[in-house]
Amino acid sequence: MAASTKPARGMRDFLPVDVHRRRYVIDVITEVYERYGFEPLETPAVENIETLMGKYGDEGNQLIFKILKRGEHEHTGQADLALRYDLTVPLARVVAEYRVQLPKFFKRYQIQPVWRADRPARGRFREFFQCDVDVLGARSMVVEAELCAAVSDVLTRLGFADFVIRLNHRQVLAALLDVAGVPAEKAGEALVALDKWDKIGREGVAGELTARGVTDASAAMLLDFFAGVQVAGSGAEARPTPAGNADITARLTAFIGGHPAGRAALDDLARILDYAGPTSAGGHLVLDPSLARGLSYYTGAIVEINVPDLAGSLGGGGRYDHLVGMFLGQDVPACGFSLGLERILVVMTERGMFPDALVAVPADVMVTMWGDRIADALALARELRAADPPLRVDVYPEPDKIGKQFKYADSRGIRTVAVLGDDEVANGTVTLKDLKTGEQQRVSRADAAEACRRVGGTQPVA
Amino acid sequence: MAASTKPARGMRDFLPVDVHRRRYVIDVITEVYERYGFEPLETPAVENIETLMGKYGDEGNQLIFKILKRGEHEHTGQADLALRYDLTVPLARVVAEYRVQLPKFFKRYQIQPVWRADRPARGRFREFFQCDVDVLGARSMVVEAELCAAVSDVLTRLGFADFVIRLNHRQVLAALLDVAGVPAEKAGEALVALDKWDKIGREGVAGELTARGVTDASAAMLLDFFAGVQVAGSGAEARPTPAGNADITARLTAFIGGHPAGRAALDDLARILDYAGPTSAGGHLVLDPSLARGLSYYTGAIVEINVPDLAGSLGGGGRYDHLVGMFLGQDVPACGFSLGLERILVVMTERGMFPDALVAVPADVMVTMWGDRIADALALARELRAADPPLRVDVYPEPDKIGKQFKYADSRGIRTVAVLGDDEVANGTVTLKDLKTGEQQRVSRADAAEACRRVGGTQPVA
Repeated sequence: MAASTKPARGMRDFLPVDVHRRRYVIDVITEVYERYGFEPLETPAVENIETLMGKYGDEGNQLIFKILKRGEHEHTGQADLALRYDLTVPLARVVAEYRVQLPKFFKRYQIQPVWRADRPARGRFREFFQCDVDVLGARSMVVEAELCAAVSDVLTRLGFADFVIRLNHRQVLAALLDVAGVPAEKAGEALVALDKWDKIGREGVAGELTARGVTDASAAMLLDFFAGVQVAGSGAEARPTPAGNADITARLTAFIGGHPAGRAALDDLARILDYAGPTSAGGHLVLDPSLARGLSYYTGAIVEINVPDLAGSLGGGGRYDHLVGMFLGQDVPACGFSLGLERILVVMTERGMFPDALVAVPADVMVTMWGDRIADALALARELRAADPPLRVDVYPEPDKIGKQFKYADSRGIRTVAVLGDDEVANGTVTLKDLKTGEQQRVSRADAAEACRRVGGTQPVA
Repeated sequence: MAASTKPARGMRDFLPVDVHRRRYVIDVITEVYERYGFEPLETPAVENIETLMGKYGDEGNQLIFKILKRGEHEHTGQADLALRYDLTVPLARVVAEYRVQLPKFFKRYQIQPVWRADRPARGRFREFFQCDVDVLGARSMVVEAELCAAVSDVLTRLGFADFVIRLNHRQVLAALLDVAGVPAEKAGEALVALDKWDKIGREGVAGELTARGVTDASAAMLLDFFAGVQVAGSGAEARPTPAGNADITARLTAFIGGHPAGRAALDDLARILDYAGPTSAGGHLVLDPSLARGLSYYTGAIVEINVPDLAGSLGGGGRYDHLVGMFLGQDVPACGFSLGLERILVVMTERGMFPDALVAVPADVMVTMWGDRIADALALARELRAADPPLRVDVYPEPDKIGKQFKYADSRGIRTVAVLGDDEVANGTVTLKDLKTGEQQRVSRADAAEACRRVGGTQPVA
């Protein structure tokens, strides 16, 4: 019996048209990030298992793909390696390992796949690409602002106009809970409850807070505050307006303004809005005090990027000043954003946002194969490929009825076919046929490349 | 204690300069293969374990990285997934899965990492990139010739002049052994022995053949034949000359010319030499009857690409007409070559073959940060990035002594720095300093991008 031919569960094959679309998005991201002075980094797909364990919380640990140790592995079942779960922890490892040779401010981008043993669902895969951009070594909110601007440039260049960058701060959240009298050890639980507001509403959150041991007085304070900012338009319905951000800032200041760490965090947020305001991020930034972000390593500003027609986020990130310290033994300030390539592709596909030129035609011209004139056909292909600029040239690989060859070219979307029969070879010409109009012309070999370009009007996709 | 910061054994991190070099080679390969009408394919890093097992022989099975099954995996040690071992088996699976939507002749290239639990050594890693190019659906030797030409174009474009494409045929080998009286069930063993000629010489091979149960009469015939083609210059010392290929063809014809399958295989080789002769492969092809290639799935022509200063090969490949049948239940003719990215990079690095422009300067200009004029600095960066063509602009992220900022830019190889002080902001100018010459000029904001280009003379690397 033949073996299964499906890709593994939650994984996908990318046929040529898919690869061209992925490459288009990746090229835009690369171009924008390099314009901001970021440099590329790549790390191995496989990490030592202890590099990853304990960095993503209990749930994360469960979702890490583990690789059997070599040798007697079939018997012991011991795993010593694991597949990369995100690009941030490997970055922290790299910064610790190469600290002396890296610049004081290390600005890197990294576009590589990660793997998570998640339950596959629409838009959720077990292998997916993250497009990360991070700055290591700087504490200034210039970093956050530049990251917001760069991500906005990417999305704008791709054709997104309606994205929202939701902005919050871990120390604002901590101060909110502290002021409301939630003890530090219950803070995580309280955030999980508040994070569900969109789904279960005020009453639901109230029940959750009580169930998690938050006192009625604390819960009431928090519920009143979050009800207020909901009215101001946060959460999934958030739409950025300067007035809205000013209103939320005022509410936050009123609630936690006296709390030193909270006040410093509010200053951070004000600076980010100030610096990023004039950039392409300006019309997209919205303060959202309900934003929490799951990962435990964030320490400062956090962001999440949404569009109305996608349940999840297009990306997110934040500041994580202690993660490098877990590898290096001393902290290095760090902040970064990650865009999800698959999420972007899902929305762009549904909205039809790809340029027409991306409809991948595999070649500009196909050289047909006429009887035993194989060497002549290959010589013509060689000339056309060597033209300046070069043409992308397919060669029909077998002598076949010429009509069948034309039909094949047409089925491939190749508009121009070149025929080299006895006459053409004898007098140094080539016959070009435009499969769209049916027109045919005989041109000299020297003019063939130029004539192909005139006929086809096709453009390389690369 | 801080965690280990090394990449896993046999794996590597690629810092920016490494990524730029890898990308340069990958871009050349992509550009050439697309010029030949090949289309890109990508498959998941992870395959179902049964897709891979049994395709690479016993040794291959041992080198496959196996991934623990999810759920109670920590206890059972059962593996249901595995890391991609090469790009050919996934291609065969893809062709079987998507047969109806793929063209009759599927010409694909694929540049992705593969993983092998091999003992790491110089130039041998556990994660490495293969650059594959294959044609599915055609039996004609036009395919082999086009592949030889495409690979030669790649290597020539990269600056290799001294590569050799060693060419042989599985059915030629089979006929040699058949004519020599080696029974079919000992053919594999005999090939392993003959393959060692370069290392252990005639006497060594003679001993191996005897030890493997090949009769003295058969061994003598084979040894005489291979001694003859060694003289003609095959093996690692092979240098292609038409006379040499003609001599080897004559020897092969004399030895196996009466063997029907052998004669057909010799016709294949003659056609490949004929078709590829006028291409860029022409001066590089050498018939080498001692070439065997390890993988069991080859059925026809086989090639290996060598340069004098590398012990292993830069790449290789061949025809494998039955592999797709293992997935589809019916055979699809197929032939393909694989280039090893790491091998190419090792030789290019040792020979200093990279263009000077690849010395990666992270930005064309760095905007300095002057006191509290942060928003102004960011605005200038925005203007320069939006110029046509855009400049790659770094922003010093923190207010710092201006001399320190200049020093930082210099240490990063950034030649031009832009300064926006109170005067400049007041009269709409910017001061540009050339860190190489020390020259300084004040230009209007509108002319700043153009002036940066004039000063730096730097070029984007992307």
